[in-house]
Amino acid sequence: MTELPTGPGPTQSPPPLPEGGLRVVALGGIGEVGRNMTVFEYGGRLLVVDCGVLFPEDSQPGVDLILPDFRAIEDRLDDIEAVVLTHGHEDHIGAVPFLLRMRPDLPVYGSRFTLALLAAKCKEHRQRPTLFEVAERERRTVGEFDLEFFAVNHSIPDALAVAIRTPAGLVLHTGDIKLDQLPLDNRLTDLAGFSRLGDEGVDLLCIDSTNAEVPGFVTPERDIGPVLDEVIAAVRQRVIVACFASHVHRVQQVLDAAERHGRRVAFVGRSMVRNMTIAAELGLLDIPQGLLVDLDEAVNLPESKVLFVSTGSQGEPLSALSRMARGEHRQISIRAGDTVVLASSLIPGNETAVFGVINGLMRLGAHVVHQGNAKVHVSGHASAGELLFLYNAVRPSNVMPVHGEWRHLRANGELAVRTGVAADRVVLAEDGVVVDLVDGRASTTGRVEVGMVYVDGLSVGDVGDSTLSDRLVLGEGGFIAITVAVDSTSGRAVSPPTVSGRGFSDDPKALDEAVSLVEMELSRTEAEGITDTHRIAQSVRRVVGRWVAETYRRRPMIVPTVIPV
Amino acid sequence: MTELPTGPGPTQSPPPLPEGGLRVVALGGIGEVGRNMTVFEYGGRLLVVDCGVLFPEDSQPGVDLILPDFRAIEDRLDDIEAVVLTHGHEDHIGAVPFLLRMRPDLPVYGSRFTLALLAAKCKEHRQRPTLFEVAERERRTVGEFDLEFFAVNHSIPDALAVAIRTPAGLVLHTGDIKLDQLPLDNRLTDLAGFSRLGDEGVDLLCIDSTNAEVPGFVTPERDIGPVLDEVIAAVRQRVIVACFASHVHRVQQVLDAAERHGRRVAFVGRSMVRNMTIAAELGLLDIPQGLLVDLDEAVNLPESKVLFVSTGSQGEPLSALSRMARGEHRQISIRAGDTVVLASSLIPGNETAVFGVINGLMRLGAHVVHQGNAKVHVSGHASAGELLFLYNAVRPSNVMPVHGEWRHLRANGELAVRTGVAADRVVLAEDGVVVDLVDGRASTTGRVEVGMVYVDGLSVGDVGDSTLSDRLVLGEGGFIAITVAVDSTSGRAVSPPTVSGRGFSDDPKALDEAVSLVEMELSRTEAEGITDTHRIAQSVRRVVGRWVAETYRRRPMIVPTVIPV
Repeated sequence: MTELPTGPGPTQSPPPLPEGGLRVVALGGIGEVGRNMTVFEYGGRLLVVDCGVLFPEDSQPGVDLILPDFRAIEDRLDDIEAVVLTHGHEDHIGAVPFLLRMRPDLPVYGSRFTLALLAAKCKEHRQRPTLFEVAERERRTVGEFDLEFFAVNHSIPDALAVAIRTPAGLVLHTGDIKLDQLPLDNRLTDLAGFSRLGDEGVDLLCIDSTNAEVPGFVTPERDIGPVLDEVIAAVRQRVIVACFASHVHRVQQVLDAAERHGRRVAFVGRSMVRNMTIAAELGLLDIPQGLLVDLDEAVNLPESKVLFVSTGSQGEPLSALSRMARGEHRQISIRAGDTVVLASSLIPGNETAVFGVINGLMRLGAHVVHQGNAKVHVSGHASAGELLFLYNAVRPSNVMPVHGEWRHLRANGELAVRTGVAADRVVLAEDGVVVDLVDGRASTTGRVEVGMVYVDGLSVGDVGDSTLSDRLVLGEGGFIAITVAVDSTSGRAVSPPTVSGRGFSDDPKALDEAVSLVEMELSRTEAEGITDTHRIAQSVRRVVGRWVAETYRRRPMIVPTVIPV
Repeated sequence: MTELPTGPGPTQSPPPLPEGGLRVVALGGIGEVGRNMTVFEYGGRLLVVDCGVLFPEDSQPGVDLILPDFRAIEDRLDDIEAVVLTHGHEDHIGAVPFLLRMRPDLPVYGSRFTLALLAAKCKEHRQRPTLFEVAERERRTVGEFDLEFFAVNHSIPDALAVAIRTPAGLVLHTGDIKLDQLPLDNRLTDLAGFSRLGDEGVDLLCIDSTNAEVPGFVTPERDIGPVLDEVIAAVRQRVIVACFASHVHRVQQVLDAAERHGRRVAFVGRSMVRNMTIAAELGLLDIPQGLLVDLDEAVNLPESKVLFVSTGSQGEPLSALSRMARGEHRQISIRAGDTVVLASSLIPGNETAVFGVINGLMRLGAHVVHQGNAKVHVSGHASAGELLFLYNAVRPSNVMPVHGEWRHLRANGELAVRTGVAADRVVLAEDGVVVDLVDGRASTTGRVEVGMVYVDGLSVGDVGDSTLSDRLVLGEGGFIAITVAVDSTSGRAVSPPTVSGRGFSDDPKALDEAVSLVEMELSRTEAEGITDTHRIAQSVRRVVGRWVAETYRRRPMIVPTVIPV
């Protein structure tokens, strides 16, 4: 096996960037799947590629979104020439409104569909961003950066790769990419363009790692059509297809199949309705005349004449599909013989939720078709075979795998080496690691701090490790509150103490024994002449904590409140 | 597709069991994967097959274990003739100590290895169970029940199926089963015996559903040996193999490969050491002379001369392997070039944890081999192809799929129908559904209540839905405690109120604004002459709840405490 460099990489602050050098730092997206954001610096000016969000894991309870860490650039906002968006997925555009809060006039570049999705998002944030539409084959100079855009295919239309030319060299950033050779919209990934760049000489390739561990090639999206056709042809009752709300080509194939089988179609779920409306307006989705029908009308059509396209393919508990599986959807109740198709991936971490939905639907008598039993999904990311094509077209001098966890980055780096890239020219970085391209050679030179930035409700950043750690304790064991009022001069309790738990036990008598322990402890502290409420609180906490550990072997949070009166 | 009956099945209490009939009720294990326990009733007497635990999901925070619901039998403990254990996995034996607490003299039947594992478990509970060892080909009469045992293979040695004869008919319960035709211990699943039962006439087949959705056949366990061999041969540094602590045959193959490559072996993790000691004592694990070495000694051996067999293959955060991945293991620190093999399944729900461990190990420079990139694991449960063999051997009149979620049960039922079982003779039940076998026909006749019984620390059952719901709220948003002492006659606050949060915000000033709101509200309640502490608490809770929803758009638990002094 190839001996690539191992992490975690440098810890020191980076040295000043040598004149004529290019600096690359990911503020998100490397070492994790999500919140992609890479900052390029040349001649004192900055270019940002993508600005997305990450969705939280179980260890981050109550968090709505996770943002890239903007600290490394927050004092240099005026140095940013532009933000370039490669495509319209949330993990590439979702954090733009939060960056715009810091600098509302920031120029944002992207393709037509990408900017339309961003505009809809910014509208919800009551922002009016400064947008510059670009397309494949275009070349634009943005300050110090000479940008060229290339068509790429992915699981959303209108995705772009970007080449960044500076005097330090030529960088190609693929964004999310695959090499579907029969794309539904006939818009091929521009491998010819990449080859031309390769001829010119690519100094650094930043390349999608998501599927680097997966051997072979992704099946063409187009091949899903006949499978959908066959599934729908066999059903006499209702059909419900769930997929990602931005997957226009998948929805297109569902609409075409529905039309062939004489079914009218209703969209279910807010984001599905919104995105498909935008896609149709831009001519990216072709909706046959008279096919669409309102949900209210659709539920009254004969069962064999209707098909629903729904959100909820990841088992999101509040989504339309989850509600149907629980028998709680207001308009659609699943009946024996209905067929539900999950035309979607199963994102790691969502298994329990998705299988819960599948079990719920089957328990109600539905047939469920999913990628486990039919070819109703293909990935949007290049598998190893396609990545080899990319490496051989681009022939980069240096490689920096992006978009992935450590296992993906490493697998991608090993592919680079197999195509002839020197192992010491493969930079396995993670968020915050500073990569400098100087004299044609990329190397890690330091690290800036990149932490998790949590959005919870309306605020950004006030929920941090201490709050999350408290939530984890409370979520596991609840809390026991001990409250007592004491005379501030004598330290004597002026009322009986209360001991009450939440999230501790269903038994109303569970804590009865603790009350007398607290009373005894208060007598003791009073006898010792302790009047400091903090000390009294500590004593009471210790007594109850020890009692609960011995009696229940549990670790609830113990919260004493001593009020001086 | 076959139109099998759909759930959720009957809701009413079951009628009395007709004389000469057999009743079957699962108190766990149907509609879920775990806590297997099936109760058979004939002539007023009960037979229990298996008594296991279920491990909690995210929606059950702080829970250690989930037990079968014993309520349906707790008034009939003396009617139980025996508990029969099919094999020694936790989801089949883990709840026995809790049943023994209710009736310590309950006779327990099982194979030698199964009983040895149970005895070790009971010792931890300070119990001395009444054990009866049985083996394949044995026939035993236990009260009303005539039992016959059959060898089956699975991912643990010494597993049994059990045939139960009563005048009501012949039932075959497979337990967990697969049909490895080249088992490592040459102990084949007794398909010949099942065929003989089929000749006699099987009235009801209770059959493992775990892999019913998976087409084809499970690869023989034996085929993992050469893969391990090849992996280990290529490594010059240390090798760490993680697998289930009860998978004796997997460990056997690791030991054999280690010996061939001149590596000594140390066991890491308490359950691994314990189980392998038992297996070796019973002659089920063959440890070559001089192969084993203590962990303390092993870490000082040359890197190419040692192999560790560890627990932690499911990413359990406190396991040895997780500690290594975080660089926190006391004795073993991962170095670049070490190889870690996860010779294990990836149980749904554990993906995030397992991939977290893999990423951690790779970040430290380890090569990680797992079922995603090498054939280092095979399942212990029959795939669809093997289930067809079972149906065709047994030729049952009625079928009741067990051990699985709804999707597994349904897939298994469809296989039964494809082999010729009538669709209306396939009983898709779930926990608590009463199945009566009367005059050779099995049908659902009612339902007994089966809920979740949670073990948290030392207590059973006092953590229920209300506590879990509080934990989920606290885990998502923390809480805000408002405390104030009031004069019990005037309702006047006798101290400034305190408002403090835990799990709400890292910002110490986050709740400052709320204090004055509480003070204003207290002035108002005092002015209105309100002295009832409960009413004051309600008012304060409402004011703070509304403020936090508007200001933060969050939903912490609001906990007011008003102390009368």
